[in-house]
Amino acid sequence: MASSKNKQEKLWGGRFKQSTAPLVEEYTVSETYDRRLYAQDIAGSKAHARMLARQGVLTRDEAQILVDGLDQVAREIQEGTFVWRADLEDVHMNIENRLTEIVGSVGQKLHTGRSRNDQVALDFRLCVVESLQTWERALKGLVESLLEQARNHQETLLPGYTHMQPAQPVSLAHHLLAYCQMFCRDVQRVQDCARRASVSPLGAAALAGTTYPLDPDSVAQELGLQGVFANSMDAVSDRDFVLESLFVGSQIMAHLSRLCEEIIIWSNPGFGFIRLPDAFATGSSIMPQKKNPDVAELMRGKTGRVYGNLMGMLTTMKGLPLAYNRDMQEDKEPFFDTDTTVTMSVTIMGQMVEALMFNPEAMHAALRKGFLNATELADYLVGKGIPFRQAHHITGNAVAYAEKNNKCLEDCSLEELQTFSPLVDQDVFEVLAYDAAVKRREVPGGTGPRSVAAQIRAVQEWLDRSKEV
Amino acid sequence: MASSKNKQEKLWGGRFKQSTAPLVEEYTVSETYDRRLYAQDIAGSKAHARMLARQGVLTRDEAQILVDGLDQVAREIQEGTFVWRADLEDVHMNIENRLTEIVGSVGQKLHTGRSRNDQVALDFRLCVVESLQTWERALKGLVESLLEQARNHQETLLPGYTHMQPAQPVSLAHHLLAYCQMFCRDVQRVQDCARRASVSPLGAAALAGTTYPLDPDSVAQELGLQGVFANSMDAVSDRDFVLESLFVGSQIMAHLSRLCEEIIIWSNPGFGFIRLPDAFATGSSIMPQKKNPDVAELMRGKTGRVYGNLMGMLTTMKGLPLAYNRDMQEDKEPFFDTDTTVTMSVTIMGQMVEALMFNPEAMHAALRKGFLNATELADYLVGKGIPFRQAHHITGNAVAYAEKNNKCLEDCSLEELQTFSPLVDQDVFEVLAYDAAVKRREVPGGTGPRSVAAQIRAVQEWLDRSKEV
Amino acid sequence: MASSKNKQEKLWGGRFKQSTAPLVEEYTVSETYDRRLYAQDIAGSKAHARMLARQGVLTRDEAQILVDGLDQVAREIQEGTFVWRADLEDVHMNIENRLTEIVGSVGQKLHTGRSRNDQVALDFRLCVVESLQTWERALKGLVESLLEQARNHQETLLPGYTHMQPAQPVSLAHHLLAYCQMFCRDVQRVQDCARRASVSPLGAAALAGTTYPLDPDSVAQELGLQGVFANSMDAVSDRDFVLESLFVGSQIMAHLSRLCEEIIIWSNPGFGFIRLPDAFATGSSIMPQKKNPDVAELMRGKTGRVYGNLMGMLTTMKGLPLAYNRDMQEDKEPFFDTDTTVTMSVTIMGQMVEALMFNPEAMHAALRKGFLNATELADYLVGKGIPFRQAHHITGNAVAYAEKNNKCLEDCSLEELQTFSPLVDQDVFEVLAYDAAVKRREVPGGTGPRSVAAQIRAVQEWLDRSKEV
Amino acid sequence: MASSKNKQEKLWGGRFKQSTAPLVEEYTVSETYDRRLYAQDIAGSKAHARMLARQGVLTRDEAQILVDGLDQVAREIQEGTFVWRADLEDVHMNIENRLTEIVGSVGQKLHTGRSRNDQVALDFRLCVVESLQTWERALKGLVESLLEQARNHQETLLPGYTHMQPAQPVSLAHHLLAYCQMFCRDVQRVQDCARRASVSPLGAAALAGTTYPLDPDSVAQELGLQGVFANSMDAVSDRDFVLESLFVGSQIMAHLSRLCEEIIIWSNPGFGFIRLPDAFATGSSIMPQKKNPDVAELMRGKTGRVYGNLMGMLTTMKGLPLAYNRDMQEDKEPFFDTDTTVTMSVTIMGQMVEALMFNPEAMHAALRKGFLNATELADYLVGKGIPFRQAHHITGNAVAYAEKNNKCLEDCSLEELQTFSPLVDQDVFEVLAYDAAVKRREVPGGTGPRSVAAQIRAVQEWLDRSKEV
Repeated sequence: MASSKNKQEKLWGGRFKQSTAPLVEEYTVSETYDRRLYAQDIAGSKAHARMLARQGVLTRDEAQILVDGLDQVAREIQEGTFVWRADLEDVHMNIENRLTEIVGSVGQKLHTGRSRNDQVALDFRLCVVESLQTWERALKGLVESLLEQARNHQETLLPGYTHMQPAQPVSLAHHLLAYCQMFCRDVQRVQDCARRASVSPLGAAALAGTTYPLDPDSVAQELGLQGVFANSMDAVSDRDFVLESLFVGSQIMAHLSRLCEEIIIWSNPGFGFIRLPDAFATGSSIMPQKKNPDVAELMRGKTGRVYGNLMGMLTTMKGLPLAYNRDMQEDKEPFFDTDTTVTMSVTIMGQMVEALMFNPEAMHAALRKGFLNATELADYLVGKGIPFRQAHHITGNAVAYAEKNNKCLEDCSLEELQTFSPLVDQDVFEVLAYDAAVKRREVPGGTGPRSVAAQIRAVQEWLDRSKEV
Repeated sequence: MASSKNKQEKLWGGRFKQSTAPLVEEYTVSETYDRRLYAQDIAGSKAHARMLARQGVLTRDEAQILVDGLDQVAREIQEGTFVWRADLEDVHMNIENRLTEIVGSVGQKLHTGRSRNDQVALDFRLCVVESLQTWERALKGLVESLLEQARNHQETLLPGYTHMQPAQPVSLAHHLLAYCQMFCRDVQRVQDCARRASVSPLGAAALAGTTYPLDPDSVAQELGLQGVFANSMDAVSDRDFVLESLFVGSQIMAHLSRLCEEIIIWSNPGFGFIRLPDAFATGSSIMPQKKNPDVAELMRGKTGRVYGNLMGMLTTMKGLPLAYNRDMQEDKEPFFDTDTTVTMSVTIMGQMVEALMFNPEAMHAALRKGFLNATELADYLVGKGIPFRQAHHITGNAVAYAEKNNKCLEDCSLEELQTFSPLVDQDVFEVLAYDAAVKRREVPGGTGPRSVAAQIRAVQEWLDRSKEV
Repeated sequence: MASSKNKQEKLWGGRFKQSTAPLVEEYTVSETYDRRLYAQDIAGSKAHARMLARQGVLTRDEAQILVDGLDQVAREIQEGTFVWRADLEDVHMNIENRLTEIVGSVGQKLHTGRSRNDQVALDFRLCVVESLQTWERALKGLVESLLEQARNHQETLLPGYTHMQPAQPVSLAHHLLAYCQMFCRDVQRVQDCARRASVSPLGAAALAGTTYPLDPDSVAQELGLQGVFANSMDAVSDRDFVLESLFVGSQIMAHLSRLCEEIIIWSNPGFGFIRLPDAFATGSSIMPQKKNPDVAELMRGKTGRVYGNLMGMLTTMKGLPLAYNRDMQEDKEPFFDTDTTVTMSVTIMGQMVEALMFNPEAMHAALRKGFLNATELADYLVGKGIPFRQAHHITGNAVAYAEKNNKCLEDCSLEELQTFSPLVDQDVFEVLAYDAAVKRREVPGGTGPRSVAAQIRAVQEWLDRSKEV
Repeated sequence: MASSKNKQEKLWGGRFKQSTAPLVEEYTVSETYDRRLYAQDIAGSKAHARMLARQGVLTRDEAQILVDGLDQVAREIQEGTFVWRADLEDVHMNIENRLTEIVGSVGQKLHTGRSRNDQVALDFRLCVVESLQTWERALKGLVESLLEQARNHQETLLPGYTHMQPAQPVSLAHHLLAYCQMFCRDVQRVQDCARRASVSPLGAAALAGTTYPLDPDSVAQELGLQGVFANSMDAVSDRDFVLESLFVGSQIMAHLSRLCEEIIIWSNPGFGFIRLPDAFATGSSIMPQKKNPDVAELMRGKTGRVYGNLMGMLTTMKGLPLAYNRDMQEDKEPFFDTDTTVTMSVTIMGQMVEALMFNPEAMHAALRKGFLNATELADYLVGKGIPFRQAHHITGNAVAYAEKNNKCLEDCSLEELQTFSPLVDQDVFEVLAYDAAVKRREVPGGTGPRSVAAQIRAVQEWLDRSKEV
């Protein structure tokens, strides 16, 4: 596609007698994917040009010409008229080359005091910081969706499971609030990561620092970054911000995969806890009865690719000597892929949660089927003075009896229950009511209705506070 | 780009009242990448149509119409006139839809006795088998390049390293032949994997097997596959062939990364063992003296992405119940990425190895600097009757003396050497010659020249044999 | 614990003035885990000693003394009287040191023509080959258990799921046979891997080959290995056999994790398809009604550690120059851990499958609840001349009607069904029977009873054949 | 070893008729490794007992008996007299069982309002927080070692490399300070992770919250934790703190692996930049001249296991439904392994850096060999009015000439240099001095001596500040 550039034209061609092998050009080119950084590259270059003028390295006029030229390049790209050239290797050279076509030889002055190494690092840091901000917004949107459903389902009870076995009744609100906590922690990790990523490497040059009297602080400020590099060799060879964001994304996907698993299982007729909105399900071209939770499955599956991106980048960075090595070019594709996956997954999950239709009847049936009030019976017996372990044993026998007779504990008559312990009395039926079990658990963070209401308020306040900022 | 398809048009839209959310369409679409399977899809469909006619399910004429229509679709895709539609979700529906436009309602009969599940599995298996064959050819090409260099460097000696410390002298041929062994093993793994992948799932239908009297064997034969599925649920939910090929690719990259590391280190002036051909190196736009081994670095870095693809797919497959789950759609992108990376990396390494210029003088200098004949001195002393452990100690002292005096063992006078042991005699200098050390190691597989020549013959015979097949 | 050995005592202490830092001793010691190789080390040394005698390097008497001494060491280790010393670093030095205590200075001759590098590689290859044989036996045992259950459940029907949604009815035998196929493929991979691992590196010495006239072939033969090394540098630095076995183990765990997921879900009361045998379940100290599928959960969880071992070792091997590097010491712990996990997991799964109690009634109830005969109704309509797509639509409407009225398709009266299509007739009820659906799928590999019986025979024959060998 | 406990004795044995299979006991036991949590378990139980008394659930006397009993258990464990029983499954039951032996039936009251799920989570969180504090201390120690060496080598120059090719001269201090930055960022990540881990789950009980009037806040305070759980289902099923710490450890190892790679390469005679202290190197039993950087190699290799632990745990957590699942028992071993590896690696690296002996002469020789002043010559020509690109080209030619004549740029005569450009003058030799190149790069964070001194001060201040806290 791209005609191979002659070796003389390469910026670094001086000592080279042969041109690059064509397959090698295709192998090493990054323009096909790092185009995605064009806006950051132009923003960084504009800030650099203005600073060069402030520092007297360029004249005000030169800087203005560069800025205007860069704006034109940006327009061309946005409008789709820009001609990308693979032979120019990457987004940076594509833009610089076009800039020079537009503004003439002054275009070459833009690179003063800068090298590809610090330029690439700057563009990519800007991109990562922006992506992390997008993730944060999407995560908060998802928390809002969960919160809204929780608000509506404070009285909907379902089995709380451990080991996928019915354990104790909880409110659906409580269940959904558990996910709110996960995604709140994710927001914190996103913020911590963004803070560390928000550092300008401009001025580090190739690796040893620039010889020009630059003012890195002012560039950082113009670009909205929180700090500047402390060591030039570190600045050009550090990819911690990529690794950390890939991990944060992996953690987010781990959380989403858990929610997806529940959506998938709850959609199965054996549970029937949710009805999938049509917009988030598909049918089968062969089996007319089917309504498949494809979106949740695909999202669960995409957990793999995000984990894989993290693993790949960790591998790439292992054992690299200082400073920049070309291996590091491999940092962008995994991040872009993770960024797209995380942003879309979190956003879609927010929409899907909002649209989920829960089925309280099916949940209630599952409460009965799972003997979810067995713990309460044991506690009741303890209250009557029986040691816990014995109470546990008596209840076990009662459950076995009920199961065998195909009914629930609360369906047994007082007489039946008394065969297991004479201490059982009429008041046992109050205890066996599922909502009674829930109401007994009002410890802060518990599933009791007051606790749940407090949790909802707390998450809402956290959301409100974070919006103010 | 693609206008969203109305729900009524979806093949499975029967029970659905709402259309799919737009972001969800973008999230679930696979057409953007699974286009790569178009040739396999068409080949599979043609074989299916012919078999349906043989079995009397279609008429000969119907089958011919379908085959001709599919050929036209193939031409349109090759010529770039085919209009891909994202709203048709995947490559299969795109082709089927266009086919029906071309041949009319008979097009719908193509899907008789087939479901998307077995169709997808077939196309992907065909693709994987072809890719593995490409890997095999590329690996053999790389072995040939290594062998050619080995043939030319049977008398070039360099330090053999362990722990990156000079250990014992070896011939460059011997060193390169070690890599031949790695890539030969890779070929074996590729073949084993291809054999297992070469299975036709057609006839498994959605999961339970087709109700039509199909003849899966004849389809497999027409497509060059070695077997047919043994269990329909396994056939549609098995992705072992993907995982295994991702592992085989990872193992190949692990080997390449080792060779890359050596190319990178050997290009450093501290070693200077190789001069990189210009076609496989780049310069620096800032530092005029530089010649960077970018290709080797990038290849080493790409090891990460291939490992990551394996890890991702392993994660995706973990804990999936039978049979097909949408998570499995995530199988294609990691494989395509690994395929491209492995094919290009092996091919480029073959070209690079062919073009490498070795520097025997620098290697000889390193032999001297690294006291590579110390083991020989110790063995010599053992030959004079000194217990090995004492000989080792004496030699250690001699090395320390020479190092301090900034010379090699062979530069010491007989008198000097005798200060460490009176048993040292004039014949020691024969022993200290580096080529003598190499010649002493003629065990099969050792670095001795006869052994190396035998190794070269053996690898060449293996290559020749495998070509005959 | 272990008193630090003085530097003079170290075998390699010659040039060294300071002793090793204590924390470093602890960091670098491998004796704590590589003890596991003692039997392989002794077997390898005995074979080496005998060969040295055959080649005339040792006398027959010396070899016999060494062999007897090694037998005594083996006994001491088996009887627990052997004193392991961390200061002797690894299993090899511990054994060699004790041997020399027993047999005197002839003990030092054992190491003639051998280095730690090829010795370690030999021991570890022997260990891996043995472990792979154990895996193979365990896998075949698991296949037998699955086959036995399949044999007993050829007429038990349950929903076949795709997307965890009921799709088409299958027999339980067919479902279980899908797993047989997975584990059969695993056996093949284990065999391929063992064949490649079964290579003797003895004679490669440190890296360049031995200077002694050894006979590597006879050692390999005595040890039951299938080949000898082709290149000495490769022989001491190759860890493909570790990586491949870690992958094969990962693939096995991936399969087990799928079966575990189904066991866990099927144990949930919403399914109730299986009753867990007490021996493979646990209760709760708090909740008396619980019976948790802990073993299946833990096994699913252990998939992670096995994947992690593979990933770790791939990372370790990335970018290592030739030949041996100390990084490679990290090969043993991941393999030992994977070996233990795979062996125990496969064995326990075999026992658990054997003990599983299936609940055909619950499966039948799920068939009804999931409209598992919808595809059959659509096919029936096609048989009556309605185009498939329209038949699909009609059936979709019928399912929606039945669902709304809380009944199954087969519970609808003929009149009711005719409201969706006048072509429906009395014979529809035969078609709606679940076993009719199964019987229609007799394609080889399908769920039809004859096909399933043939599958059972084929797997049994494979087992029988493989036992003969 | 451990006699299998009869089913009646199991705390949850009520409904169970069969005892656990022996292999299953071995498979599910955690006591062999979770003993490591004994101190945390006892601390947590003491705090729980005291709180139960404050809340009136226990009497003061009962609480005191429990606390005294727990102290005795702790002493027995520390003194090695405690008898660990595998049949008691885990550390928690071992301690509780022994406590009850000591204090009688009051021991059973300790578990009031608590379940194994929140107890395990508490113990493990305490352990992780302590480990993270250890990592922080070790990292700061390493930074101090690096800083001390940097302080001593502000005037030692060496080639700064990119692509492992000589790029521009830097001071050794500057190079070492790059690593200070990496480890400083690691400290920040450790702190962020510890803050999030420092949450008490006590009161969450099995999953729904306790029914007792507990005071979780006071327990958290007594244990030095910064917060309490917000949602009980999340509290028992959250393992973010494990994943995050495994990532932070992976990032630390990635940094260490880079430093190790440099130590290994710099120890090679081709570089000779460092002499390894004997205490951190080993020799060879065969090759007397060798001094191997084993510790650095092993540490680089251990990067794999730490990455693998992260990957494994991410896999384990994927797709788990709420709340606790037994899969999560797999959280401890990877963390313990990572903890040991990270703590030892960082500590040993600190000691090794402190003991490294640098060789400024070898570094200077490498400066000359690598044409490290080529950039300066190009800049010099630019200063004379030549456009940069042309200057780059001229310098490229000069380098080629010098290389061919086997000398450095500064060894060329003025006449020789003028053949490349007549603008070269006598003052060029000042520019070609390597220290001049370094001194020109005084941008903050650059390699200039004033910048480096400022960096040293800044890192020292950071260390001092963090100690005050």
